Amino acid sequence: MRILGRLASTLGWTVLVALVLGATGLALRWAWVSVAPTAPDAPHLEQKRRYLSELPAVDPKRAPNVVVVLFDDLGYGDLSMHGNRLIETPRIDRAAAEGLRMDHFHSASPVCTPSRAALLTGRYPPRTRTDRHVFFPDASPVGRARRVLGWANELPADEITLAEVLGSAGYATGMVGKWHLGDRAGFRPRDFGFDSWFGVLFSNDMVPLDLYRDDEVIEADGRAPGRFGQGERDEQAPLGPGGIDQTRLTERYTEEAIAFIEANRERPFFLYLAHTFPHVPHYPSSEQAGRSRGGRYGDVVADLDRSTGAVLDTLARLGLAERTAIFITSDNGADYGGSPGALRGRKGEILDGGQRVPMILHWPGRVAAGRTSEQPAMNVDLFPTVLAWAGLPLPGDRVIDGVDLSPVLLEGGALPDRALYYYPVLDTLPGAVRVGAFKYLAQTGDVGRDRAHLTRTDLDNEAHDLGMLHPEVAGRLAARLDEMRDRVADNPRGWR
Amino acid sequence: MRILGRLASTLGWTVLVALVLGATGLALRWAWVSVAPTAPDAPHLEQKRRYLSELPAVDPKRAPNVVVVLFDDLGYGDLSMHGNRLIETPRIDRAAAEGLRMDHFHSASPVCTPSRAALLTGRYPPRTRTDRHVFFPDASPVGRARRVLGWANELPADEITLAEVLGSAGYATGMVGKWHLGDRAGFRPRDFGFDSWFGVLFSNDMVPLDLYRDDEVIEADGRAPGRFGQGERDEQAPLGPGGIDQTRLTERYTEEAIAFIEANRERPFFLYLAHTFPHVPHYPSSEQAGRSRGGRYGDVVADLDRSTGAVLDTLARLGLAERTAIFITSDNGADYGGSPGALRGRKGEILDGGQRVPMILHWPGRVAAGRTSEQPAMNVDLFPTVLAWAGLPLPGDRVIDGVDLSPVLLEGGALPDRALYYYPVLDTLPGAVRVGAFKYLAQTGDVGRDRAHLTRTDLDNEAHDLGMLHPEVAGRLAARLDEMRDRVADNPRGWR
Repeated sequence: MRILGRLASTLGWTVLVALVLGATGLALRWAWVSVAPTAPDAPHLEQKRRYLSELPAVDPKRAPNVVVVLFDDLGYGDLSMHGNRLIETPRIDRAAAEGLRMDHFHSASPVCTPSRAALLTGRYPPRTRTDRHVFFPDASPVGRARRVLGWANELPADEITLAEVLGSAGYATGMVGKWHLGDRAGFRPRDFGFDSWFGVLFSNDMVPLDLYRDDEVIEADGRAPGRFGQGERDEQAPLGPGGIDQTRLTERYTEEAIAFIEANRERPFFLYLAHTFPHVPHYPSSEQAGRSRGGRYGDVVADLDRSTGAVLDTLARLGLAERTAIFITSDNGADYGGSPGALRGRKGEILDGGQRVPMILHWPGRVAAGRTSEQPAMNVDLFPTVLAWAGLPLPGDRVIDGVDLSPVLLEGGALPDRALYYYPVLDTLPGAVRVGAFKYLAQTGDVGRDRAHLTRTDLDNEAHDLGMLHPEVAGRLAARLDEMRDRVADNPRGWR
Repeated sequence: MRILGRLASTLGWTVLVALVLGATGLALRWAWVSVAPTAPDAPHLEQKRRYLSELPAVDPKRAPNVVVVLFDDLGYGDLSMHGNRLIETPRIDRAAAEGLRMDHFHSASPVCTPSRAALLTGRYPPRTRTDRHVFFPDASPVGRARRVLGWANELPADEITLAEVLGSAGYATGMVGKWHLGDRAGFRPRDFGFDSWFGVLFSNDMVPLDLYRDDEVIEADGRAPGRFGQGERDEQAPLGPGGIDQTRLTERYTEEAIAFIEANRERPFFLYLAHTFPHVPHYPSSEQAGRSRGGRYGDVVADLDRSTGAVLDTLARLGLAERTAIFITSDNGADYGGSPGALRGRKGEILDGGQRVPMILHWPGRVAAGRTSEQPAMNVDLFPTVLAWAGLPLPGDRVIDGVDLSPVLLEGGALPDRALYYYPVLDTLPGAVRVGAFKYLAQTGDVGRDRAHLTRTDLDNEAHDLGMLHPEVAGRLAARLDEMRDRVADNPRGWR
């Protein structure tokens, strides 16, 4: 009681009682609660079904093929086209030279899960319940703790993915690679619109890292997980016994991607090639290992570069290049061992080093070669952009945060009054906003210095605070961020 | 007892008893212990006296004047000569164009106190007992806690500073600006060899920030300190009532520096101009405020640029330029609001962003104009270099970690087999080593990823780990770091 008294005098009795009740509740939930996935929102699940069933069929002569090549944790500075002097990426660089390179393109989150959800749905992290870092294997203590805390551990069934829309309208849809949007049956790629899937459920530092074809495990991970359900995170560790052969993952993904393209050459297709690397740990192919001046990291990036070249070669060989828009990007900024270039921050931070990522759009005939754009954009834009190209309507029952980028991508124009919002990895509300070249951070994450910061992204790498120099800009952006915070707090899922 | 039992079952009884005894000891020390400064090492204090008394007098015709302009927290990327596109530093840039710019020059620590001790003594942080972050006002809780923990809070009296050596050999010695190497009487600039001092004891976010001339407070800080003895750290805060007028500090320092040069124009002199800015909080001069595109930070840097120009102009006007070697550098990397350029990390980290700093040597006639050097060097090198120029012997009773840089500075040569060591701010032992272009970090400080990392500083900004690609280099540098760690552990002060 004496300890309780001391605590109460510091915290107040109300807070103390709330804490004790809360802790008790969590303990009871841990012991007894069902770990069923969160129920979907019934009205919006129904609206999703209606929307998908009412979609028109696309015109197979006019609807473009769409390929999204997504790297995992590839940093802004990891490509030679962005100044890397150790790693050579000739095929990716060539794709940029033949197409459009966007130098101010962002992932919607500085970590995997929310970024992938945003790419596939066009919606910011809280819309898709991915506002609490990344999903974990259901059986791991972290996965269980997520449920106890009431955090989602899979994409809600009411969400609408790009694959579902395009598939419902007549596209062939295939996914190759890492999912990271749910674990259990019913929440895997084929449950969200992909006709086929070859790949893994999680990041390659998580256990079990089983290899799936469609809904079947074709190679099981025989390793024992670490205490938190994790596997090897040391990028220099040898490949442990029992796990799948990660040195061949990029090659196998590439073969599957090429096979999908070949099989679907006669109809519109959507291919989502979500690579496992350069996420840690790093396992280069035996052909590449030891050859990059960038070390093991450089080797896995060189593997990815070759893979990207093979996909582009396949499209050219089959005469599909001019009918295929291929996006090449990353799910977030550089992690340990990768390079953010000259940007501030890394994976996990809403600074540009955490969210500005390489982006190339290669589409000969439609996208002029050799152009570079500094227009701010984000991966939430892919969903509405691709739907516009396919002539498909957006769903009307929910906010789509992205916008149709066609004026920027196809015409070299700009999007007036465009605001991008940045979501810290454990926060439902955005912590920063960008309009034009100005970025306003309400949360910087710097220990002891977490305060408002206005930066000019065209001339500075988020170093100097220009808030006092441009008080009207700072005020306008702060107000815009506050408005968005209010809107998201009122309606995090963005239902209409 | 039940809690003790649980703790013991986790920690073991031995550890628990040790912890309890330790905590009790610290509490007793806090309550009763004398907070006298640590006694100097008597034999080495005696050897210091003998060394200084036996120094030959320098030849006033041949010994160069030496000026060290030291900025506080100026980052590698804060100058236009290093690519800053918001801040203009025409005078510093011109000094670089007329002299030597060193692009791989380091402070000996990523924070103030140990870096300044190293600059003045030629010795790494543990030698000077500055291996525990920075000194605090004696009266503050942090200052007291430092003594309770047995950490030094002033430079030991047995240390030998550049000012003491040069003064003993006939130089006029003057200091203007921030000391940060001790608080109480007996441990201030005039106690360590400076004939005159005008400035402050601490960083400008500490309280009290009294303004001193020699040993007298000429303007007292009337503000109440914060809970930990600190003052304002918000770079945008208005100047609080009661404090000294920081908007005029750079200007007053500059006037004092010029007056010192004028007064000592006929004899060799050593001037240590240790600016208060761009450390937070930022108070630009009224003439400059609001004019830099780099905001308030840019304004204080512009003030420093003008100050540096005024010092150079004074030397030229008095016909002293060719007799004066002027070093222009910073005490550590960029803090919040400053720019590390494309380097990884910031103030407080042993990554290059924390320790690689701008360095210019301007000495017309002796140092060729317009040269840039990538030779690795550190501010511990100033002590032996200047002593060599003045024809003075090094003390023999202690390790001097720096080396004479003359081959690099005056002849454009290299120093073979040079190793630089990097000391984390709360560690007695070095955590990284650099030899040639390779840097090997045993401690990176990255949470959850703190592991060995080999980098090529000529081609990469400490992103990619090349340890597996160059195992022989990694092994050699790891061994060299281990050797140094052993040597420092055996003899941290470096006594001979």
